[in-house]
Amino acid sequence: MISRLSEYFFRTLREDPADAEFPGHKWLVRAGYIRRVAPGIFVWLPFGLRVYNKIEAIVREEMDAIGAQELRFGSLLPREPYEASHRWQDYGPTLFRLQDRKGADYLLGPTHEEFFTLIVKDLYSSYKDLPLILYHINVKYRDEARPRGGVLRCREFVMKDSYSFDVDDAGLAASYQQHRVAYQAIMDRLGLPYTVVHAMSGAMGGSRSEEFLIETDAGEDTFVVAPSGFAANVEAVRITPPPEVDAANVGPLQVVETPETPTIESLVAIINANYPLPDHSWSAADTLKNLVYKVTDVDGKESVLVVGLPGDREVDEKRLAAALEPSVAEPFADADFAAHPELVKGYIGPVKAGAGLFLGEKGSSQIKYLTDPRVVAGTRWVTGSNEVDRHQINVVFGRDFSSDGVIDVAEVRDGDPAPDGSGPLSLARGVELGHIFQLGRKYADALGLKVLDQNGKLVTVTMGSYGFGVSRAVGVIAEKTVDEKGLVWPKQVAPFDVHVIPAGKDDLVLATAEKLAEQLSEQGLEVLFDDRDVSPGVKFKDFEVIGVPTALIVGRGLANGVVEVKDRATLTSTEVKLDEAVDFVFTAAQVR
Amino acid sequence: MISRLSEYFFRTLREDPADAEFPGHKWLVRAGYIRRVAPGIFVWLPFGLRVYNKIEAIVREEMDAIGAQELRFGSLLPREPYEASHRWQDYGPTLFRLQDRKGADYLLGPTHEEFFTLIVKDLYSSYKDLPLILYHINVKYRDEARPRGGVLRCREFVMKDSYSFDVDDAGLAASYQQHRVAYQAIMDRLGLPYTVVHAMSGAMGGSRSEEFLIETDAGEDTFVVAPSGFAANVEAVRITPPPEVDAANVGPLQVVETPETPTIESLVAIINANYPLPDHSWSAADTLKNLVYKVTDVDGKESVLVVGLPGDREVDEKRLAAALEPSVAEPFADADFAAHPELVKGYIGPVKAGAGLFLGEKGSSQIKYLTDPRVVAGTRWVTGSNEVDRHQINVVFGRDFSSDGVIDVAEVRDGDPAPDGSGPLSLARGVELGHIFQLGRKYADALGLKVLDQNGKLVTVTMGSYGFGVSRAVGVIAEKTVDEKGLVWPKQVAPFDVHVIPAGKDDLVLATAEKLAEQLSEQGLEVLFDDRDVSPGVKFKDFEVIGVPTALIVGRGLANGVVEVKDRATLTSTEVKLDEAVDFVFTAAQVR
Repeated sequence: MISRLSEYFFRTLREDPADAEFPGHKWLVRAGYIRRVAPGIFVWLPFGLRVYNKIEAIVREEMDAIGAQELRFGSLLPREPYEASHRWQDYGPTLFRLQDRKGADYLLGPTHEEFFTLIVKDLYSSYKDLPLILYHINVKYRDEARPRGGVLRCREFVMKDSYSFDVDDAGLAASYQQHRVAYQAIMDRLGLPYTVVHAMSGAMGGSRSEEFLIETDAGEDTFVVAPSGFAANVEAVRITPPPEVDAANVGPLQVVETPETPTIESLVAIINANYPLPDHSWSAADTLKNLVYKVTDVDGKESVLVVGLPGDREVDEKRLAAALEPSVAEPFADADFAAHPELVKGYIGPVKAGAGLFLGEKGSSQIKYLTDPRVVAGTRWVTGSNEVDRHQINVVFGRDFSSDGVIDVAEVRDGDPAPDGSGPLSLARGVELGHIFQLGRKYADALGLKVLDQNGKLVTVTMGSYGFGVSRAVGVIAEKTVDEKGLVWPKQVAPFDVHVIPAGKDDLVLATAEKLAEQLSEQGLEVLFDDRDVSPGVKFKDFEVIGVPTALIVGRGLANGVVEVKDRATLTSTEVKLDEAVDFVFTAAQVR
Repeated sequence: MISRLSEYFFRTLREDPADAEFPGHKWLVRAGYIRRVAPGIFVWLPFGLRVYNKIEAIVREEMDAIGAQELRFGSLLPREPYEASHRWQDYGPTLFRLQDRKGADYLLGPTHEEFFTLIVKDLYSSYKDLPLILYHINVKYRDEARPRGGVLRCREFVMKDSYSFDVDDAGLAASYQQHRVAYQAIMDRLGLPYTVVHAMSGAMGGSRSEEFLIETDAGEDTFVVAPSGFAANVEAVRITPPPEVDAANVGPLQVVETPETPTIESLVAIINANYPLPDHSWSAADTLKNLVYKVTDVDGKESVLVVGLPGDREVDEKRLAAALEPSVAEPFADADFAAHPELVKGYIGPVKAGAGLFLGEKGSSQIKYLTDPRVVAGTRWVTGSNEVDRHQINVVFGRDFSSDGVIDVAEVRDGDPAPDGSGPLSLARGVELGHIFQLGRKYADALGLKVLDQNGKLVTVTMGSYGFGVSRAVGVIAEKTVDEKGLVWPKQVAPFDVHVIPAGKDDLVLATAEKLAEQLSEQGLEVLFDDRDVSPGVKFKDFEVIGVPTALIVGRGLANGVVEVKDRATLTSTEVKLDEAVDFVFTAAQVR
């Protein structure tokens, strides 16, 4: 197959697109692979579609290899099953909703758990029909608040989603493991180094879940890696609480004057000056910061939540969101504080001096109060006194105050101890390309998917759900392989195998290049032939921008019977005898 | 490739699905190819997806063969370009509209003229870049009032739509002709006999357009074929007006009493009895029926329209819709008549006796009045007198009344004279599988697609638009090939090449069948292997239902060294020696 650039529907752009933050996105647009249609919505131009199709084929082959069967649902789906699973509500504004001409409610499918559950319920009824793995590769929709990175986070994207159906937990574990192996095979074939991280399962429900993350600066998922190899999404990190402390020697709770302490640092300074400790200085880690949130649940009901955590840590908004999901939290605004005069901004604490417990459902405020896992019995804190310009010191958890429970939402830091005790954690950023879940029986319960077991008894099926971002993979590979000159495709997903460039207007150069292009095509290679009437410089530059792995350049050397083979990744050239060129390129084009 | 029925995700149903009107639809559901998700929305089960994919591949190959380049837009599209082309309004309730979380308007693409126009505008700027043909194969959405026939008319469906871009009319004609040839090749490869009919272009705009119709009772498009071979969609039939008549000898307009004439027949009878003509009887064709419609234009403005046509014809609602598009007409309801007391239901006529012209913008009613092309100067009519129980006779067009214009919306009947004078028309029903349009400059004008011509002058590009119903083709082929036992796939689109059936529980039978399945698979055939633990009768029945073209049956004959090869279409069997079976089936499976 030969594609002639003179006729090919593409244009390279000289300017970076305004919305492109990352180099892969930038070059995908500049090289004519994708174009923006609307925020988070792209068209695949011919180059881009070729890369996309190769990735899709690899994903399909590996799914077929584990015995998964392909079918295909559409994207326009009626509301009712999503109502039964609560996702109609739980997805919030991320779900695209619409009505048909009769006023019936529809949505654009974000994933298809409900309908796969229903189709299995429709067709199958016995344990003999299981295990079963079904999948489809189709367009998904999510109305992301912040689409970003080109095809990395879109509102319209292609996902491979598969679903496993088993009669028991052991079966689910096996189906899950099959997917884990398939995903590793896909990542290897795509040439992507990956990290498998433990993950929260988000709105999906379920128990065990892992993400396949590709480390890149363009990623928006932060994950941690322990020296043991344990890796987790920050949302899934559970810190190990420190041991309880004996507070017998801690003096009584004391209210202290702390005027002009707008920051934790200024508070620590004044306390160290006026109330020094015998053995060490007070630090930010000794202060207990109490942050107030307005929490809205899926039915729209609002409540107030105070989160108490050490003053040297911030709340990680993603960890907070994951902890409260499907409810949504917003920090208290001035208007909210005005409506709650009992909450003295900047001076909130669990205890009201002289009046006992203030925060918590059992406190006088009756406001829910959750504390960081580091707040264990016997720990001594500096915290607010619920009066302007006053704090309290020696406030001991378990002695002076309590909370309504633990909330583990403080930021995780590089160097924090790993939950498994193997040493300090490292933080990295990555893009989630695959996600495997043990859903369990949530959807089967909600939609009544039961089969008869070996004893003729109806049992609820247990399910897994496994997503892979097919269109996102185009963007991830671009980000991982791009250089300062343009795209650099790995052979297995490149839009073409070889880019043939006649460098010169000489008839012999053109005829030789065309003949080589034909011979390479006859060998089964996909050939991009730059037959345009432009200068060699423009052609070389476009070769670097487009990123086909190998160029075959026919130029001045032809007089001496040689042509040049150039490797896009290394930009190194090899002189090859004309009659050996086809074999040389054919060998170079093979995927190892 | 061997697929084992014991593990295959399918179930045959014993009962006809309630909503299946046509045999193809019925068997696609019963055989486990498709399942309904919502009205006009289906899931493709594994069998169905295999057939769909084969059709898609054929369409893609033929598009590539004419040099069309594939890209891919999504389905979720912003409103603005459709506003510029007026389709946002013109599509009416057939367009699925929705808003995103920011309140921006989106639609689900019914076709993509606007965005293909914009992407060419974005990338190209010179006549040197043209001609150009682009296409994509993607999911389309139309909120059909009456989805029907399973995948024949869906609200969510897959269409191949291509678009041609040329600098001049000659170029457009050439691109159109290329598509015509490609569509003929597709139809031939799908094994579908087709009729190319002249068509109205509907909301698409444009000039020349033809439909590729497949004749079937399941079709909802009526088309006519003339003895000359001329064929047209009924919407596109333009009847030849009869010659004008000399009305010199027609007596004066006369008001006649016509009590108790609820029907045209009773009216004709009373007129014949009381006012006989010397040379022939009055017939229904002599009466002028005046029907009242409420017309709503795209801006929601309502107006009244009276259509006058011979009393022996009905208005064809589709022809009326096509004639008024994008406005929409509804017959006057009782409430509408109540609001217009001047329109005396059952007695409406163009003339008010003693008061002159009544209907028409120049008449006293000022109500728009359009008449059938058969109403030519000198024709004499029996019509309403605008008073209860009274009609008028000898009402002559051009002498006693006029209209605001011609409207050609009366039903076309089998035997009507062909517009080209070649004889009587035949009527048939068909499904539209392809539609090719010469759009002209409508979209390029609306969206500003211009290129520099050879003289450096900006010229507006002229476009064609070419649709092919890929998912619909599955349904059409099913309708055309189904028999009373089930589906009967042509080889080129069958889900499998051969269906291997061990008929018996004997180990040797099973082992032999499995070995043959493997050998056939090694020959490159797609093998469906019925390894289920069910009776031979069930297997034979499912073979007939599923419709793989050829079965290889291993049964009792094995003792004598023979197996049976059964052809699904003819249900004839051939005994074949065991060691010749693979060759025999391989040969039988080839597409001629």
